Amino acid sequence: MDEIRSRISSRTYLPGTRLPSVRAQAKALRVSVSTVVEAYERLVAEGVIHSRPGSGFYVSGPVAPLALAEIGPRLDRAVDPLWISRQSLEADAGVLKPGCGWLPESWMYEAGMRRALRAVARADSSVLTDYATPLGLPALRQVLARRLVAAGIDAPPDQIVLAESGTQAIDLICRFLLEPGDVVLVDDPCYFNFHALLKAHRANIVGVPYTPNGPDLEAFAAALREHSPRLYITNSGIHNPTGATLSAATAHRLLTLAERSDLVIVEDDIFADFETDPAPRLAAFDGLSRVIHIGSFSKTISASLRCGYIAARADWVDALVDLKIATSFGGGQLAASVLLTALTDSGYRKHMEAVRQRLAQAMESTVDTLQGMGIAPWLIPRAGMFVWCRLPPDVDAAATARTCLQQGVVLAPGNAFSQSQSGSNFLRFNVAQCTDSRVFESLAQSLSR
Amino acid sequence: MDEIRSRISSRTYLPGTRLPSVRAQAKALRVSVSTVVEAYERLVAEGVIHSRPGSGFYVSGPVAPLALAEIGPRLDRAVDPLWISRQSLEADAGVLKPGCGWLPESWMYEAGMRRALRAVARADSSVLTDYATPLGLPALRQVLARRLVAAGIDAPPDQIVLAESGTQAIDLICRFLLEPGDVVLVDDPCYFNFHALLKAHRANIVGVPYTPNGPDLEAFAAALREHSPRLYITNSGIHNPTGATLSAATAHRLLTLAERSDLVIVEDDIFADFETDPAPRLAAFDGLSRVIHIGSFSKTISASLRCGYIAARADWVDALVDLKIATSFGGGQLAASVLLTALTDSGYRKHMEAVRQRLAQAMESTVDTLQGMGIAPWLIPRAGMFVWCRLPPDVDAAATARTCLQQGVVLAPGNAFSQSQSGSNFLRFNVAQCTDSRVFESLAQSLSR
Repeated sequence: MDEIRSRISSRTYLPGTRLPSVRAQAKALRVSVSTVVEAYERLVAEGVIHSRPGSGFYVSGPVAPLALAEIGPRLDRAVDPLWISRQSLEADAGVLKPGCGWLPESWMYEAGMRRALRAVARADSSVLTDYATPLGLPALRQVLARRLVAAGIDAPPDQIVLAESGTQAIDLICRFLLEPGDVVLVDDPCYFNFHALLKAHRANIVGVPYTPNGPDLEAFAAALREHSPRLYITNSGIHNPTGATLSAATAHRLLTLAERSDLVIVEDDIFADFETDPAPRLAAFDGLSRVIHIGSFSKTISASLRCGYIAARADWVDALVDLKIATSFGGGQLAASVLLTALTDSGYRKHMEAVRQRLAQAMESTVDTLQGMGIAPWLIPRAGMFVWCRLPPDVDAAATARTCLQQGVVLAPGNAFSQSQSGSNFLRFNVAQCTDSRVFESLAQSLSR
Repeated sequence: MDEIRSRISSRTYLPGTRLPSVRAQAKALRVSVSTVVEAYERLVAEGVIHSRPGSGFYVSGPVAPLALAEIGPRLDRAVDPLWISRQSLEADAGVLKPGCGWLPESWMYEAGMRRALRAVARADSSVLTDYATPLGLPALRQVLARRLVAAGIDAPPDQIVLAESGTQAIDLICRFLLEPGDVVLVDDPCYFNFHALLKAHRANIVGVPYTPNGPDLEAFAAALREHSPRLYITNSGIHNPTGATLSAATAHRLLTLAERSDLVIVEDDIFADFETDPAPRLAAFDGLSRVIHIGSFSKTISASLRCGYIAARADWVDALVDLKIATSFGGGQLAASVLLTALTDSGYRKHMEAVRQRLAQAMESTVDTLQGMGIAPWLIPRAGMFVWCRLPPDVDAAATARTCLQQGVVLAPGNAFSQSQSGSNFLRFNVAQCTDSRVFESLAQSLSR
């Protein structure tokens, strides 16, 4: 019954769909015929399905609301992206979060935020009360354009669209490019919320194994042949969760493959300011022809301030802005103005230098401690907050996460990041959240079980 | 060629679809066979379609990006919802906007915003830097719950979900409830961005004529029978664009009809604080069983501050929050904290009293002036900023809007609000934006042509 309910929620069975015959269903689900008969009869009693004598069982309408949790295979909660996001977002101050994707409060640009808020409190009345123009605050788009040029990405301000967040930026692009059922390539492993976001668009997600230099190009080429995907979503700069960086050679060959099969690429550059020596950017190589570049400052300035951006080819901007107006009525100037003030504050550069040093130290000590426990980094990241680690043989990451959660430690088990569920032996650590020894005590306890 | 391109963009023709034969197409589009042959050949040359010898013409893949502007019938730009939104959002200070949907800067709660920003600049570090909890700032949800109870809507804080805006609130609900192709009922006329938003969800929009007491119930019942819609989206309190208010009798009968046909209703309460004597709320009658109540303060406190809310039945909250996390990663605390501070500032009540008085005066003088020009209000609204007016016989609102736009006056022609395009003789006036006599001079000029 759960299986059929979930296929109805996930739209695999649409209203009016004829269900497989009892025999076929029994075979497919590897259960007895009588079990299926029983399940079908109960679902009829519930009105979820109905039978047409002599014809079979049909799904009843109307369509059930979209429940992301029920789309696709039921995941162990410990590796369910939405559940992990909630664990981290709901965690109170007492809980330790080595599995979360952001820096501790005290590492963020708090002083700059306070200055920016005081400055904006004195801004023109229109900044405080008006809607923004459709593309978003021009002065911020100019600053972003200059930053992008410095990264080799030639994006004039009128090819930059502000969004409510980096996530909303990707969401707008998915609305623009995807049809339900379209195939989207992601890295395996990749940032787990990509899975949730793509589910919300009812895309078919195909994972491509990630190597220390970027996606495995043979697997990528095979996925292009086999699935003719519409889109590939990846992190540029520092890869989440592996901390790997794309090599120039891989970037070039990846784009050549993409051109051949008319693939659009979304490059999420949210970790840019953590880099010490910048990695190649697909958008720089490609010149924003088939690559869409997005970013935000939730990881460096403030996650409380919601503002992201999209840099895209000129002839896509209007349609993206139409979708933005239709679905969020443009947005406001306030967040953009506070961000602009904080970003152009002379203190931001110093702040990020300090954060990078602090991260480098935290990376070193965390890796040492983990290695001492038999937990081995897949690679030593050049920069950033994440290190992707293999647990000792036969230790299940999900089980470890469950045990540690009982002790108030939120971990990020590998399969939350893995479409192929090949990460059961991995954990992602956020080194900035590993400064409290209780993280390792709880981990050691769980390993010693 | 345009027609076929637009059907491809709008997904009427999906990739792989066989196009109608040249003869059938010629007949359907009422053009000559040779025109269709010519068009098909050019589209083949462009690679938009391809021919299979002896079989016909087929749409080439991949799917074109979603261009809202090309979905549905091509509208006169002067009545295209997205184009009107852009005209108002892009207009510089010199332009007059009697057609826009918000108050002038100087009418907004600027003093409260400045106080709130200064207060939040001193708030705890977490308010300035952290993500919000999944449902959104608890203290704001408590204040909203109290406001709703005062309006007769029993929505405890854990049934209130914060969103980035009122529009994003409706968008989340559409993601939750709608499948592409689902039928959605709207008022005819209704707030024009509902049309754009529903297009983005590829819903089929059906308009129900609006009367001075609410939707025409016979037409509503007929639409339920004919289209079995999934959803009905309407304004509660003061209706946009007509300024009408729902009567208790209509509300009751409407809900009875909705219950019979399992219809979900979204009630957009964004104009609540403009009311002098509150109209009935569907959510109050229904007890949040099939009615979802949404709102924001973009019209009264600030449009620059993005924060809206959803009040919904308890068993829908989790799925809505999952969608919110997947598509905007929860959101921040900053906007919610500024809104909370401004909303609970003792000055807000006084501010709104002044705004209501000012609107009442502007309503009276605007209506007088318009009547003197032969422009007759459909009804005299009890409150709010909008008055829906019939132009003199045979005057086309879209033509009038085009003429006035050349003189820097943005009007809102009736058909932008009308699914049936039955508003060609109507204009919506925002009385708060009609205090400059140039509005009427330009209008008079255009009428005298």
